[in-house]
Amino acid sequence: MRILIANANTTEAITAACVAAARRAAAPGSDIIGATPAFGCTVISTRAENAIAAHALLATLAEHAGRVDAVVLAVSHDTALEAARQLMPCPVVGMTEAACLTACMLGGSFGVLTLGDARPYTELVARHGLAARCAEVRGVAATPQQAMAEPERVAAMVAEAVAEMAARCDAVVLAGAALAGMDRALQPAAPVPLLDGIGCAVKMAETLVALALPKPSVGSFAAPAGRTSQGLSPALAALLAGH
Amino acid sequence: MRILIANANTTEAITAACVAAARRAAAPGSDIIGATPAFGCTVISTRAENAIAAHALLATLAEHAGRVDAVVLAVSHDTALEAARQLMPCPVVGMTEAACLTACMLGGSFGVLTLGDARPYTELVARHGLAARCAEVRGVAATPQQAMAEPERVAAMVAEAVAEMAARCDAVVLAGAALAGMDRALQPAAPVPLLDGIGCAVKMAETLVALALPKPSVGSFAAPAGRTSQGLSPALAALLAGH
Amino acid sequence: MRILIANANTTEAITAACVAAARRAAAPGSDIIGATPAFGCTVISTRAENAIAAHALLATLAEHAGRVDAVVLAVSHDTALEAARQLMPCPVVGMTEAACLTACMLGGSFGVLTLGDARPYTELVARHGLAARCAEVRGVAATPQQAMAEPERVAAMVAEAVAEMAARCDAVVLAGAALAGMDRALQPAAPVPLLDGIGCAVKMAETLVALALPKPSVGSFAAPAGRTSQGLSPALAALLAGH
Amino acid sequence: MRILIANANTTEAITAACVAAARRAAAPGSDIIGATPAFGCTVISTRAENAIAAHALLATLAEHAGRVDAVVLAVSHDTALEAARQLMPCPVVGMTEAACLTACMLGGSFGVLTLGDARPYTELVARHGLAARCAEVRGVAATPQQAMAEPERVAAMVAEAVAEMAARCDAVVLAGAALAGMDRALQPAAPVPLLDGIGCAVKMAETLVALALPKPSVGSFAAPAGRTSQGLSPALAALLAGH
Amino acid sequence: MRILIANANTTEAITAACVAAARRAAAPGSDIIGATPAFGCTVISTRAENAIAAHALLATLAEHAGRVDAVVLAVSHDTALEAARQLMPCPVVGMTEAACLTACMLGGSFGVLTLGDARPYTELVARHGLAARCAEVRGVAATPQQAMAEPERVAAMVAEAVAEMAARCDAVVLAGAALAGMDRALQPAAPVPLLDGIGCAVKMAETLVALALPKPSVGSFAAPAGRTSQGLSPALAALLAGH
Amino acid sequence: MRILIANANTTEAITAACVAAARRAAAPGSDIIGATPAFGCTVISTRAENAIAAHALLATLAEHAGRVDAVVLAVSHDTALEAARQLMPCPVVGMTEAACLTACMLGGSFGVLTLGDARPYTELVARHGLAARCAEVRGVAATPQQAMAEPERVAAMVAEAVAEMAARCDAVVLAGAALAGMDRALQPAAPVPLLDGIGCAVKMAETLVALALPKPSVGSFAAPAGRTSQGLSPALAALLAGH
Repeated sequence: MRILIANANTTEAITAACVAAARRAAAPGSDIIGATPAFGCTVISTRAENAIAAHALLATLAEHAGRVDAVVLAVSHDTALEAARQLMPCPVVGMTEAACLTACMLGGSFGVLTLGDARPYTELVARHGLAARCAEVRGVAATPQQAMAEPERVAAMVAEAVAEMAARCDAVVLAGAALAGMDRALQPAAPVPLLDGIGCAVKMAETLVALALPKPSVGSFAAPAGRTSQGLSPALAALLAGH
Repeated sequence: MRILIANANTTEAITAACVAAARRAAAPGSDIIGATPAFGCTVISTRAENAIAAHALLATLAEHAGRVDAVVLAVSHDTALEAARQLMPCPVVGMTEAACLTACMLGGSFGVLTLGDARPYTELVARHGLAARCAEVRGVAATPQQAMAEPERVAAMVAEAVAEMAARCDAVVLAGAALAGMDRALQPAAPVPLLDGIGCAVKMAETLVALALPKPSVGSFAAPAGRTSQGLSPALAALLAGH
Repeated sequence: MRILIANANTTEAITAACVAAARRAAAPGSDIIGATPAFGCTVISTRAENAIAAHALLATLAEHAGRVDAVVLAVSHDTALEAARQLMPCPVVGMTEAACLTACMLGGSFGVLTLGDARPYTELVARHGLAARCAEVRGVAATPQQAMAEPERVAAMVAEAVAEMAARCDAVVLAGAALAGMDRALQPAAPVPLLDGIGCAVKMAETLVALALPKPSVGSFAAPAGRTSQGLSPALAALLAGH
Repeated sequence: MRILIANANTTEAITAACVAAARRAAAPGSDIIGATPAFGCTVISTRAENAIAAHALLATLAEHAGRVDAVVLAVSHDTALEAARQLMPCPVVGMTEAACLTACMLGGSFGVLTLGDARPYTELVARHGLAARCAEVRGVAATPQQAMAEPERVAAMVAEAVAEMAARCDAVVLAGAALAGMDRALQPAAPVPLLDGIGCAVKMAETLVALALPKPSVGSFAAPAGRTSQGLSPALAALLAGH
Repeated sequence: MRILIANANTTEAITAACVAAARRAAAPGSDIIGATPAFGCTVISTRAENAIAAHALLATLAEHAGRVDAVVLAVSHDTALEAARQLMPCPVVGMTEAACLTACMLGGSFGVLTLGDARPYTELVARHGLAARCAEVRGVAATPQQAMAEPERVAAMVAEAVAEMAARCDAVVLAGAALAGMDRALQPAAPVPLLDGIGCAVKMAETLVALALPKPSVGSFAAPAGRTSQGLSPALAALLAGH
Repeated sequence: MRILIANANTTEAITAACVAAARRAAAPGSDIIGATPAFGCTVISTRAENAIAAHALLATLAEHAGRVDAVVLAVSHDTALEAARQLMPCPVVGMTEAACLTACMLGGSFGVLTLGDARPYTELVARHGLAARCAEVRGVAATPQQAMAEPERVAAMVAEAVAEMAARCDAVVLAGAALAGMDRALQPAAPVPLLDGIGCAVKMAETLVALALPKPSVGSFAAPAGRTSQGLSPALAALLAGH
């Protein structure tokens, strides 16, 4: 089984880190490959960058259509998730979506924790229709830059936030590249399970491949066909045309 | 990995059918075992029977605590799911919950289809906090008895309902023992993916085992300890006591 | 009119206290009788205990079916309320439900106050479909044991919480056995009405008996009939069978 | 106990009919008195008429403040209910609110049935925060005039609507003066309980009087004081002033 | 274009202030006229006063029906807004509604800020169906009297509240007469846009006049006709009668 | 005042039609200019096309940043609306959003009517937080191609749908390019107001320009600064960089 880990920004190092995390989670026999967009933003941190990344991501995916068994979107905003599901002939999983759905299966309410502005994740949880299960979305007052410069101090801030959230949340999703992998360090002392998007998404991708469900033939997730375009990459234009 | 398929009614044949379905879905290396309650109702079809089944199910699970890696509740009402998660030291997955969460990962809205009264499933979807993703819960006007006596006629009714639901639903969950396995027969002609609870639940159980998340140490899903009782089975009483 | 006060745990002293509270609230002519389950947990404080208590409660009610005019569930989790309504030939009222509905009739928003973990009551209010009317569910940081050992200190904590909640809540429901009857002591100094579950439930039971509404003959609250079971008490099995 | 049945339109015959219905429901010892506004609309059937009726109703209530133990608003729109609760020193119950809350205690979902435009009742259920419990609001295509001219034909239409609603609703509230009392004729053949607003409201008023809850001393339901006005009735102006 | 600024209390000075604010916002060619009710409360600050004001406002509007092109309700509770829309032959805009809808067009979430009890505005936002866009409703702990006596101190409190709300709100609506016009003083230092009801409402009224949309001929916003009444002002009675 | 009408597909004829509609609605002094993306899809009708159009639209807007006073997104999906608001230094209005908010000011509930699949508009209304005001989203069973080939037949289908929707909706928003301008032909016979997105959006854009509200300096709608990118148009890259 080939699983594509598709980054949505142009930073190769982030792709590599996500691929490594995916390989740790993958079952034997799951082949993990990474992809980085050819255009877009170095890091996605605003609404405009995220909107641009949607196109970049779809163009990236189109290069792999038919050559992978599943896609994991390696961007915590689950950028272009619905569009990618329509476009691609294989399952597509968002990393934050996967972590939230996994949290649902642990029971009760979950929380989402990120660095900086928490608002986009509140909107994301609502877009996924999971607001009823989410007890809190919290942003720790630290930047990704600070997390790199002072990792222990920021990790302590995150651990403290998790401990407070545990009063309301039965599990906590760690969202955003800056928190990637931090679940391993913090889990031993955390009162509730910590969920990492890439790991959850890889397992969910494997699940969907195993279930072998067909694509719908009707509705807004049916494969595109006969759509004409200009100025798009050949692979993307071909997928829209249904070729 | 040992996965317990726990029936909630006292009919051994249903346990056997669920175990068979689970084995079809299980990964190599997943060992499927079944369990049937020692008391309760022959078939669960009303609120009172479901309430009684919760106790029967917990008593059944208690016999296997510590001896299985995960539990799948083989009852479409996801009976006692939250209580089982608190009680057991391993992951517990509900079959309808698992199918609904899988449907979420296909994108858009899902529907739930059952025979007879659809109301309990509307309540179940709401209890799982997934009402925002569920476009329709529909009951086909046929009894389980009719489904056994005239399987082709009822299958045709179900297929017709699926086709109508596809105008609103991007996937359809088949709920209730009478529809178990019908996805295989109807999927080829269905316009949207059909989801079978046991299959989805087994994959989700495997996922949770692989993720190896700890139980919370606080809150309402933390393991019970020091609880005293009378008249319960020794295994159940011991789990409540934290022994 | 005979009203059954049905405890859901096995502690006779709690049954007796609830019966006494019910008698204070009952109209002249309302005859209050109590019942305690023959099996289950000494005190219900976790999800698993509550699930077990549902069976115990139904078995207890079955002993009185046809011999009482109404039932009050004397357990603040409103355990098995819907199942009991289906099973019994008479009205069944939950004590927290009754207090919440009474609060609705006072206007505006209500709050729910308990000792310890507030989460189960948040879920209970949502299960009753009353979340839109509930402005706050708060748990005072004290255990029932502390409430017994240091009643004045805990009463002061409760009074302070009520005073704070009054900024958002036009009435406060006191939930949980440890707060039973505390409304009488705290009401004089409280800025908003305090609602005690047993008192409200007894009046609501009297109201439902007076209205003499029939049971539905269709749907999931219609009386069970023809249901087969094994290992249940004779009275419960007979009710399920429709005898 | 004196209970005021306060009409909100100027038609004395409707007041009289409501008083009669209230007397049928009242407990021995409950003294029912009626009141009709001195100004306003003959019948309330539009938004503007209802807004005007709020003032008329408050002016009517003010004449009885301190001289009754409870108020029932005998208008199916629950006109000025929140304002009346703030203004009056005694409990105030709305007839549709009371029927909806009673329906909640029967379990499951309720429906609301009226003649003509159902929209106002959809808004009313939402205003009461009970939308989560209400499965359907339906308007039978008949006018109050037709209900008077051809009572049997309209009763048959209502009975048919009830039978259809029973597929989704475990109880049906009959709303609007034209359906008042129709529950008695239709209940025997109806598959679910039918709820009449006046009867439910009288019992709820008796319940609130028996519970003897205080008015809040803070918030938007505290009694008005020191409010100045011009052109209002002396009694209403005095209540606002806190005299 | 003639726009009526309709006050709902009897204080002429407030009418004059609102008219002045409206003139500052009005386009060239928009003629602003004011109106003050002949009866009612000096200032509306409780539920009962607001209910009375609805009648007073409709009576005031009726005097201008057919002689103005649009109405702005100059009362932050949007008193009688729906009734006024039904009654009047021209567009009617509520000042808080207009500010909230304008805030929606700035993107993200808005907040509402007032002096004193915030609860009525929480209810108002819900009545307008905008709760999903409103992140916070906050009451600054100051009275209108204090705002008049110590304007700088209260302005500083408001500015501080705005700064805190900006963590959740992308715009803040200032609600209540005591904050009218304060947007001009506080905007330069505020981190998010501040919205004043009168200004927004005048622009929205101009927009609706320009769009020249017809009144519905069916439903609960169609013009009244044939309604009979007693004790109402001649103009109001005539509008209800459809003359 | 210069208002940019920004198309999101690459069809110049649609841009021209939207510009013409905008000019009909614009106030004297409002200068309407149009823009068409340099890349993207000929017509946007699927999720993937819409995601690609977001980038194309932002690139188009970036060419005009600082040179227009407001932007109207001339695409009924309100594509990239939130991102455009963050990116641009002037107000940005979505055409369907504007029509829905205008409908809110008419009172009661609105409906949305389109050709073909209605699902995307249900999601759009929810994304705008207006689901509580929207009574129905309906897709007429006709394609844009049929609307061009048989305009009278499709217009009759739309008129019939509007008439039916009027039982629940107090106004109807016509959504999608194929229905653009149809409000003028159908309004005379329609029972409720019909709302055209371009007209409403132009008036709302004029309103926002007149109110002269500042951009937020904090949060997710603050202007981007210091963002690095590759492969984007110079104008778009410069805006993201904050130049």
